[in-house]
Amino acid sequence: MKMFTYCVRRRALQMCLQSSHYCNRCALQLNRAHSTQELESESDLTTTLLKLCEDRSFIAPGEAPTRALRRGNACGYGPLGKDLKKNILDQWWNSITRSKAQVFGIDTLQHVRNDAGSLKLVDASAIGQIINDKDLTKNQVVDRLHQLLQNSSPVRTNLLQGALEQCLPSMELVKRKLPFGLAETGTCHQVLDQNKAAIGCSSELTEASLAWFCSPRTSLQWLDHWTQQRLKWWRKFALSPSDFSSSGVVEAELPDGASRGVQVMYRFPWGSEPLETLWNLGESELLKTHGNDRAKLQCKDGRKLVVPHVVAVNGNMDRGLLAYLFNSLQLEKKKVSGKQRLHQRKVLKLHPTLAPIKVALDMGRGATVERRQVCEGLLTEFLDADISVWPGYLETMPQSLEQLHSKYDEMGVLFTVMISEGTLENGLLLVRSRDTTITETMHISEVKAYLQKYISAADNI
Amino acid sequence: MKMFTYCVRRRALQMCLQSSHYCNRCALQLNRAHSTQELESESDLTTTLLKLCEDRSFIAPGEAPTRALRRGNACGYGPLGKDLKKNILDQWWNSITRSKAQVFGIDTLQHVRNDAGSLKLVDASAIGQIINDKDLTKNQVVDRLHQLLQNSSPVRTNLLQGALEQCLPSMELVKRKLPFGLAETGTCHQVLDQNKAAIGCSSELTEASLAWFCSPRTSLQWLDHWTQQRLKWWRKFALSPSDFSSSGVVEAELPDGASRGVQVMYRFPWGSEPLETLWNLGESELLKTHGNDRAKLQCKDGRKLVVPHVVAVNGNMDRGLLAYLFNSLQLEKKKVSGKQRLHQRKVLKLHPTLAPIKVALDMGRGATVERRQVCEGLLTEFLDADISVWPGYLETMPQSLEQLHSKYDEMGVLFTVMISEGTLENGLLLVRSRDTTITETMHISEVKAYLQKYISAADNI
Repeated sequence: MKMFTYCVRRRALQMCLQSSHYCNRCALQLNRAHSTQELESESDLTTTLLKLCEDRSFIAPGEAPTRALRRGNACGYGPLGKDLKKNILDQWWNSITRSKAQVFGIDTLQHVRNDAGSLKLVDASAIGQIINDKDLTKNQVVDRLHQLLQNSSPVRTNLLQGALEQCLPSMELVKRKLPFGLAETGTCHQVLDQNKAAIGCSSELTEASLAWFCSPRTSLQWLDHWTQQRLKWWRKFALSPSDFSSSGVVEAELPDGASRGVQVMYRFPWGSEPLETLWNLGESELLKTHGNDRAKLQCKDGRKLVVPHVVAVNGNMDRGLLAYLFNSLQLEKKKVSGKQRLHQRKVLKLHPTLAPIKVALDMGRGATVERRQVCEGLLTEFLDADISVWPGYLETMPQSLEQLHSKYDEMGVLFTVMISEGTLENGLLLVRSRDTTITETMHISEVKAYLQKYISAADNI
Repeated sequence: MKMFTYCVRRRALQMCLQSSHYCNRCALQLNRAHSTQELESESDLTTTLLKLCEDRSFIAPGEAPTRALRRGNACGYGPLGKDLKKNILDQWWNSITRSKAQVFGIDTLQHVRNDAGSLKLVDASAIGQIINDKDLTKNQVVDRLHQLLQNSSPVRTNLLQGALEQCLPSMELVKRKLPFGLAETGTCHQVLDQNKAAIGCSSELTEASLAWFCSPRTSLQWLDHWTQQRLKWWRKFALSPSDFSSSGVVEAELPDGASRGVQVMYRFPWGSEPLETLWNLGESELLKTHGNDRAKLQCKDGRKLVVPHVVAVNGNMDRGLLAYLFNSLQLEKKKVSGKQRLHQRKVLKLHPTLAPIKVALDMGRGATVERRQVCEGLLTEFLDADISVWPGYLETMPQSLEQLHSKYDEMGVLFTVMISEGTLENGLLLVRSRDTTITETMHISEVKAYLQKYISAADNI
């Protein structure tokens, strides 16, 4: 098998005939040298980000969640993290299922019938009963445990297997015309490293998977198509797109059955890690799943009948979420007004489509019942228009404007709307933008349309 | 503890002072007598529905999925089932999180640290290594297995525990002001019945859970509030709302720590089954989760400091999906045109908000390239407006109008749009409604607005 790379600069898949596995640029990225100073500031950045994520309800507090996230596993998400993850998954879903008319969504079980992995769900009390039974000999214990394991459900370690199993009814839906795809997002489980498990780490992750069934002669083109589409998608929501790149996978690292592979990588402070993998699996995995029954799997490629080749696209969305958090964190040194002290402004400049909260409603000090009613009216108006709102006006502890803005900046809130005493008289309110830090005066009747326009414009870039 | 019931007719929670646990009406519903004839037609209905669901890609084909669904577990869902489930979950989410400003969404792990259940995820190959090691004595095998089980992750059997664990950071978000709620939807696992597991049944289900934290003096009112809200919600999307009811739970059947309970039930052909449960859990479960540390948990109830009481709302959304499928299936006997033969029309009259596909695009026989282009234009227009479309025009096998309509009726498609040769000349197309079976002529420029208006009107009823 020949080596190949995906070159970011030229945005094309290319065959590598030279001895090195990566083109110069990719190799540079992967082997980026770190000086001691660099390493320190990197770990600072990581600490800062993870602290912010805990403080602002992106992730559940504690040591374990941040460790899990760094390993590319899921962690417990707080309200903001949950919405951010949902927004990322929704965007992934739309980009995959709407790019081509014939991509179907499926929802397979986590308990599978056959899985290459050996992770099984067992009733620990049943095992306990067997091993605590003093009357049983060793052989009897072994026999009973074997039987119990045989009857236990394996759990899925990836989404691909489910898609391969469900491909037959979908073939009927498209009258066996190629290409078509099956998309799914969901939780997968990993074999536990006992040492890690002992210190309370999780080993689950949220995958987003597309199994693309196409004719053998077009499979390489499709691999190229999806590689470009995926890289473009990751970069669409990035503040600094160049941190996302793609690179070919060397033969030794390809999974069983794959003949080619590409990875979309993100440059984390501690090094590059894959966010999404694309494998050209040929026909072997599909045939294996269906007992090598070629006749059952035949589809139409023009007038010829062929067994489809599978291009598998597989994203680790927990790691993707962390990538977007790192990518959007901006640290700005600024002078605190009137004082000589330098203050570090932390802003989570998440893409408007991904930002979990689009607008915060607040009313500053000395709030009255009437102003609260205005806030509640706006809240309902925004929610009805599917604009997510943070009801800051419910908070009774007075905060300075500066404290308020730095809180919302860290939460990645796009706009802060302030209802003042004057709003009750003339209907004017203050709208402050996260990205420009500029505050504009706007009439209350215009705010909703302004926000909608801003968000949908960002969506269509 | 006193008995109580929720009376459907009076729509109120009432204390039962008489000896029977249920009011007359509820008791009648629960113990509804079945004659043999009734039983036969019920099993016919079940067979018809499940066959239809397989044929029309709601559920993955096979014996196991239908058995799992009937037991109230998840099954593998095809494209239509996946979208139906998503629509139900989205509606549940909106109704819970938007009804009150202070409900936060969370996303906890499936691998938990502590769970009362004994279901654990283990590496079967590690167990295999231990029990196949011939050099180990029985005691050594037992010791190693104990250690392995100790280090294995338990998996969650419900969502409540995760919410109770995550309630501390959320308390900070609301500055310890009551009430507030934590909502989550996700997969939970059940202890496997070894006999069932052997024949390939799954034991996972999709739960939707709200943990509502309120002051002790208002917890009964909140239980009542949420019971009414939930029953109203289930009925909102029903074709025959009276199949959904609620009834109190007798003391003996309450879970640990619960002092009161209500269930929202659905009358399946084989009997009533609970879709959603509401427990008043008091403070005990919350205290238990946090090591009985009252000081840590104190929240504000006016000027008093109290440990919040928990009202837990918990829905089985796989069973909910099956309930809506049964509820919306209509069988109509009709004469086939011109013939004396009776034909049974099967329509899945799913609520417009829940229907997985809102519109099918078709062009009948003798299709041309131009008509196909019109279809593709409409497809993009609909998708951009978030209207789910079935691209029927891609199908190359000619079907009669009657076949087409009966297919789309079984899929629950709201409208069928037919592009004819005339559309190219005058822009007129035919729009057929699933519910009225009436076909209207409409201009191509009006279709999108018409569909949007229809769907949003149904949503706001």
